Amino acid sequence: MLLFHNNCMDKIYYLDNAATTKVFDDAFDLMKKNNEQLFYNPSAAYSKALESKRVLNESRKQILSVMKGSAGKLYFTSSATESNNTVFEGVHIRAGDVVLISKGEHPSVYNAAHRLEKRGIVVKDIPLNEFGKVDEESFVGLLSEKVKLVSVIHVSNETGAINDIKKLVQITKKFNKNIVFHSDGVQAFMKIKVNLQDLGVDLYTISAHKVYAPRGIACLWVKQGVVVDSLLVGGGQEDGFRSSTENVAGALAFAFSVSKLSADFENNYLKVLDLKKQFLERLNNSEISSFMKCNSFEENSPYIISLSFSKIKGEVLMHSLEIDGVVVSTGSACSSKKAGNRILEAMGICESDIVGSLRISFSPYMEYDLDYIVSCLEKNVNVKK
Amino acid sequence: MLLFHNNCMDKIYYLDNAATTKVFDDAFDLMKKNNEQLFYNPSAAYSKALESKRVLNESRKQILSVMKGSAGKLYFTSSATESNNTVFEGVHIRAGDVVLISKGEHPSVYNAAHRLEKRGIVVKDIPLNEFGKVDEESFVGLLSEKVKLVSVIHVSNETGAINDIKKLVQITKKFNKNIVFHSDGVQAFMKIKVNLQDLGVDLYTISAHKVYAPRGIACLWVKQGVVVDSLLVGGGQEDGFRSSTENVAGALAFAFSVSKLSADFENNYLKVLDLKKQFLERLNNSEISSFMKCNSFEENSPYIISLSFSKIKGEVLMHSLEIDGVVVSTGSACSSKKAGNRILEAMGICESDIVGSLRISFSPYMEYDLDYIVSCLEKNVNVKK
Repeated sequence: MLLFHNNCMDKIYYLDNAATTKVFDDAFDLMKKNNEQLFYNPSAAYSKALESKRVLNESRKQILSVMKGSAGKLYFTSSATESNNTVFEGVHIRAGDVVLISKGEHPSVYNAAHRLEKRGIVVKDIPLNEFGKVDEESFVGLLSEKVKLVSVIHVSNETGAINDIKKLVQITKKFNKNIVFHSDGVQAFMKIKVNLQDLGVDLYTISAHKVYAPRGIACLWVKQGVVVDSLLVGGGQEDGFRSSTENVAGALAFAFSVSKLSADFENNYLKVLDLKKQFLERLNNSEISSFMKCNSFEENSPYIISLSFSKIKGEVLMHSLEIDGVVVSTGSACSSKKAGNRILEAMGICESDIVGSLRISFSPYMEYDLDYIVSCLEKNVNVKK
Repeated sequence: MLLFHNNCMDKIYYLDNAATTKVFDDAFDLMKKNNEQLFYNPSAAYSKALESKRVLNESRKQILSVMKGSAGKLYFTSSATESNNTVFEGVHIRAGDVVLISKGEHPSVYNAAHRLEKRGIVVKDIPLNEFGKVDEESFVGLLSEKVKLVSVIHVSNETGAINDIKKLVQITKKFNKNIVFHSDGVQAFMKIKVNLQDLGVDLYTISAHKVYAPRGIACLWVKQGVVVDSLLVGGGQEDGFRSSTENVAGALAFAFSVSKLSADFENNYLKVLDLKKQFLERLNNSEISSFMKCNSFEENSPYIISLSFSKIKGEVLMHSLEIDGVVVSTGSACSSKKAGNRILEAMGICESDIVGSLRISFSPYMEYDLDYIVSCLEKNVNVKK
């Protein structure tokens, strides 16, 4: 049996909630209850199995209702990465067709899209403006008769920048209503308002482990009439769209977390917005303010803050802060290679500011001693600079 | 919040463990502990994240060691379906090449293989003999210079028939050592002895939820030197092989269950073998013996028993048995459409026996009142016949 090292969680300030979240205890208890009472395979034909399928579909309904997604179907997948890969492999595109994605995409969109180049599909990156959002003028310029699929991230996982998906969809559909529009909503869902009816997208990705539910479960929402081929074939689960024994416990936990977050939505938003404001205010009034630049703007999602420190590497700062119990990231966990650089670079941020960047993501369900956190930043930036 | 109907688990005899299993309580507790202490994203760069990655890799090592898989790498995926789809999408095959699979494959192999036909790849089904095993003579006859990939299930999910994978690999490699050999070991792993070193396969699939661990986690084992492209691209997790935030809790639970099953292996096998023998003996001595035929043979894995009842539909029998608290399946949960039929048909079983078939799969961790179960079968077969 594996042993954990001794952890003193109460001394840690976790500021990397954009990378993953701690599953709600109640969501865990619900999974356990499901395992005790209704662990059956929902694709079996007996009543107990059908009851398990009912729980799966109830969970689906709950999530769908929060997203205002009645105009489409919500399919469970194993991860946002799988959902995003399903989009690029499943939407009908042929050699010579054009796919547009933003330069600010998560690697699971960016790499899944660019993989299509092997099949002769042309993949073009839409530039970002200095605020980290899709540059609309450039986007319009890239639209052509050959464009078959557009994918723009809803909220940037690096900076919290919010793309105006509704407007981008309108521009796209006005140009050609047959272009399929996908948005990766992983950092938007349950953090800013997500109303699929209003957004007008064809496809939308969400993930459970970013919203206090476990890994191994996510969704792809598909608007009625939009054709997407299966990525995983086999037993024909999820109405034939996605084969694999249904992860009922995961779906149940996901739905639970979504319901809780939905009820707490306004309070959470205001709490995190306040944390962001106070945190930045203290930093701006601190002795390191002149070594610092914020890459996240007022209109961004407050859940993600990108900071750049000059004269110190983000990585070095991250490690020093962790010794003081302050856990931050140098960028998205998926971007250790280069994605973070790509996105900040696309915003026109200079190399030294990219190297010196940190990502801070608060949780409304954790308490933070901002004075202490800022003092740790001051100390470590001062020591190293 | 979703409510469960009132369940009286203590009155249920669950005989569908081949479809899915109840997660061990201790595996659940371990996941909970992981969530409390080490929920971090293993792809982040700070120490806590690296510790989480260590737990992931320790889990991998434990499973790998039980499989004797040191000649290759074990990659975590979300399900056996994903592992199997990765094989058929990831192994390099071109139009005109031939892929051989058995007629006894699980739908996630069968359908993933036949999907390749769209790309001009020739997919041939190897016939089964009357015992539900690959017919070796036919297999040899199908080998040709064009064959690039062979996939044969280790233990049939319909009948428990065990294919002699070692021999089939030897035949294949003798013909052409470059042919890639995959085996779906979902119903073999932790039920019969699986020694990858001895089997000689290139690729091997296992799943967690069939061995008392949760859904959302599985593995694909890849022998060193065998080239398989990624199905999911993105953040580059799993050494670049399979992108997605790593499901550490799932991997930990999987490793725990595998360790427990490994320790209990002999006892479990003997217990289930004894259950099978006693169950069949009682049935053969019962008043319904003349209406019954067993499609699973003595040399099969004792964990799966396929029975055919004449003059009564398996589906009808299944529902009547459930009222008495006996939960059995009419075939694999994935095969509601036709896979079960395909496999039994390939064994030469007549249609009425296929329609009247039930699948029984015991668990060594549950108690069964065989007298009661057999009496329920007698009663329901007698009533309906």
